[in-house]
Amino acid sequence: MNMKAPRGTVDLLPTNTKKWQYVENHIKGVCERFRYDEVRTPLFEHTEVFQRSVGDSTDIVQKEMYTFEDRGGRSLTLRPEGTASVVRAFVENKLFGNPSQPVKLYYFAQMFRYERPQKGRMRQLNQFGVEVLGSANPAIDAEVIDLAMTCYKELGLRSLKLVINSLGDQESRENHRKALVEHFSPHKDELCSDCQTRLTQNPLRILDCKKDRDHPSMKTAPSILDYLNNESKKYFEQVKEYLDLMKIPYEVDKNLVRGLDYYNHTAFEIMSEAEGFGAITTLAGGGRYNGLVEELGGPDIPGIGFGMGLERLIMALEAEKKEIEIDDELDCYFVAVGDEAEKQAVRLVHELREGGVQVDRDYLDRKMKAQFKAADRLKARFVIVLGEDELTKEIVNVKDMTTGEQLEIPITQLINKMNEKLQGGK
Amino acid sequence: MNMKAPRGTVDLLPTNTKKWQYVENHIKGVCERFRYDEVRTPLFEHTEVFQRSVGDSTDIVQKEMYTFEDRGGRSLTLRPEGTASVVRAFVENKLFGNPSQPVKLYYFAQMFRYERPQKGRMRQLNQFGVEVLGSANPAIDAEVIDLAMTCYKELGLRSLKLVINSLGDQESRENHRKALVEHFSPHKDELCSDCQTRLTQNPLRILDCKKDRDHPSMKTAPSILDYLNNESKKYFEQVKEYLDLMKIPYEVDKNLVRGLDYYNHTAFEIMSEAEGFGAITTLAGGGRYNGLVEELGGPDIPGIGFGMGLERLIMALEAEKKEIEIDDELDCYFVAVGDEAEKQAVRLVHELREGGVQVDRDYLDRKMKAQFKAADRLKARFVIVLGEDELTKEIVNVKDMTTGEQLEIPITQLINKMNEKLQGGK
Repeated sequence: MNMKAPRGTVDLLPTNTKKWQYVENHIKGVCERFRYDEVRTPLFEHTEVFQRSVGDSTDIVQKEMYTFEDRGGRSLTLRPEGTASVVRAFVENKLFGNPSQPVKLYYFAQMFRYERPQKGRMRQLNQFGVEVLGSANPAIDAEVIDLAMTCYKELGLRSLKLVINSLGDQESRENHRKALVEHFSPHKDELCSDCQTRLTQNPLRILDCKKDRDHPSMKTAPSILDYLNNESKKYFEQVKEYLDLMKIPYEVDKNLVRGLDYYNHTAFEIMSEAEGFGAITTLAGGGRYNGLVEELGGPDIPGIGFGMGLERLIMALEAEKKEIEIDDELDCYFVAVGDEAEKQAVRLVHELREGGVQVDRDYLDRKMKAQFKAADRLKARFVIVLGEDELTKEIVNVKDMTTGEQLEIPITQLINKMNEKLQGGK
Repeated sequence: MNMKAPRGTVDLLPTNTKKWQYVENHIKGVCERFRYDEVRTPLFEHTEVFQRSVGDSTDIVQKEMYTFEDRGGRSLTLRPEGTASVVRAFVENKLFGNPSQPVKLYYFAQMFRYERPQKGRMRQLNQFGVEVLGSANPAIDAEVIDLAMTCYKELGLRSLKLVINSLGDQESRENHRKALVEHFSPHKDELCSDCQTRLTQNPLRILDCKKDRDHPSMKTAPSILDYLNNESKKYFEQVKEYLDLMKIPYEVDKNLVRGLDYYNHTAFEIMSEAEGFGAITTLAGGGRYNGLVEELGGPDIPGIGFGMGLERLIMALEAEKKEIEIDDELDCYFVAVGDEAEKQAVRLVHELREGGVQVDRDYLDRKMKAQFKAADRLKARFVIVLGEDELTKEIVNVKDMTTGEQLEIPITQLINKMNEKLQGGK
């Protein structure tokens, strides 16, 4: 029997989830400052949503998707990336009719890709991402990049590299496509079989090939930047100017094409340059996807976004030795000794929590000494003791674990007193 | 082409996600007070994890699971409920070896059940749940129920009904099972085909049948409560006494058996009694599952937990007309007029956000008047205006949208001044 988590997936246990919560809450705060709102789409979509958007000839669609039929015979696919689902939701819910435009959205979502698992590459991975729909202003491209960089920088990452490129508009891309075909055709037989297919289907993908990356023809391949028409050129210049104004450093990499078909104009990736980060250095990637909304059945509305791997973000924090501070103190631990005290503990613990106090207690019928040990382990600030003596006197004994000070408090005043003591705490 | 969300799933858009965030944050706060920690398990498990735990003869396993083969030929299933995955993770990660026992966990997770979609029943649904592993103290049963009730009550729900039952220990269940077989056998031919199978496989499930619920034999069926041995009886009495001590009202329903095989001793459901809530009234359900850890390959460790549907929780809030207060004010809206102002806006908006100020701006090249309208729509508290005049004077014009007051602020002081003005705000 196989009772392990499926290959390429992991459990996040409490020590880890506390770190994740910290990171996620911070990112949510950044989104709030930038005024982005959360969207949540289903875990799976009709398979054609990804075929049409990510692209039939991409590795994702061809090799990596979790596709299955449901009991009604529908072909469904666990989402391999975030943009297609959000754009599908934007179209289906007619968000283009919202009075506020552009629509600025963010998501936290699990993605699923059937790849060979390795460090920084899981089959189920977690992404944070944003999508802005309804603006073709280069300032929004800069804002989206700014948002990604802000998340990293405020979490403490320093060894970051932002790489940008322009894939141009349709006309530019078409001219570039022709040049690529012309360039690679003489070397067709030396390229891998995938690239041979790509040559007719989608030659841009050749630049992305992991097998052929060292073929001499790759170095001399025509760059999209030489084929940008004036409009595309101007757009790219403006994006760069805005990044300069924000003092966000970047490099232009004319080979950055991203592994999805829907990108045009701005494309970008953010990499970690931290020592020991590992072989896969991309932390986030995104770009503009004018035309995708139409492709998925909506009006002609431009869009831009990115996806950021959270596993890799946390790996990068570790590589840069940024400790995430976790508050794991406990306000109160309730020690009860004896049958009657046990009953009163049930009531008082309930009432303390109702009154806003964080409190835990023993559920293993442990002796007093072992209960104190448990309180220590849980880093309790106060231990509240109720034994037979205390019951008779209708008090509890409260011990401040920092100072060692002990105090008798009438049971009836317990909640008020604890709230007083903890004021300024949690 | 099918570009809709799959049947039985929905998108949560910003108006809704804000409500969900509010509810989730509140529940997380309750978990913190009760000292429960978050766990996150993968979206899917090896199918046998659910077959062994939920039970082969249950509706969930037989009819409702999203089961598929991955590209490596593994049979995987999107989780239909939360307990099995958490217990699998508890065993695989050997959490029974943690120094702090019991292990108190909570999760927020999507569940997947292929059912006929209707109000309150989606194919992808969201659950909050808790699992406590490592204590067989009736006080923890009461705590778990208390936690669920606290979430509802603090969110403002009033029309709640808590129903509890005991399914007893193994001995009690076995005696009850025999009595059920004896009771239903004479009526075998009148029962539905599913129940005929259940009669040999798992007669307790007959009490749960939706088709046979009106058969006369159902009313006179032997109750588990008449078959509890002394230990089970005592355990149930203690749970009830603890609920009484906490002043949590409940009803005992001897027919409450829950639709999963792994329960024993305490079982409970919380229902909404709000008018107009709909036909499906169960908000949460759970119970004790001693034996399940062993069933999934771990040591003999007791457990208890519940799952709470978040869609239904939000429906219940609506049925009880509890408004969730959402903060959707915007701190600042930046209005820029002219090419040079646009550039400075890019820089200043970036710097304001970096300085902790929430700010949005126009990305549609709108005229000043339209930008003011957008600021209104976004409920901006302050509008910052930068035009040619202001540029020359190296100031911005800040308008307080509540008071109408206008103020000129030197550009170099903008971030400090806005932070001052917003102090005590977000």
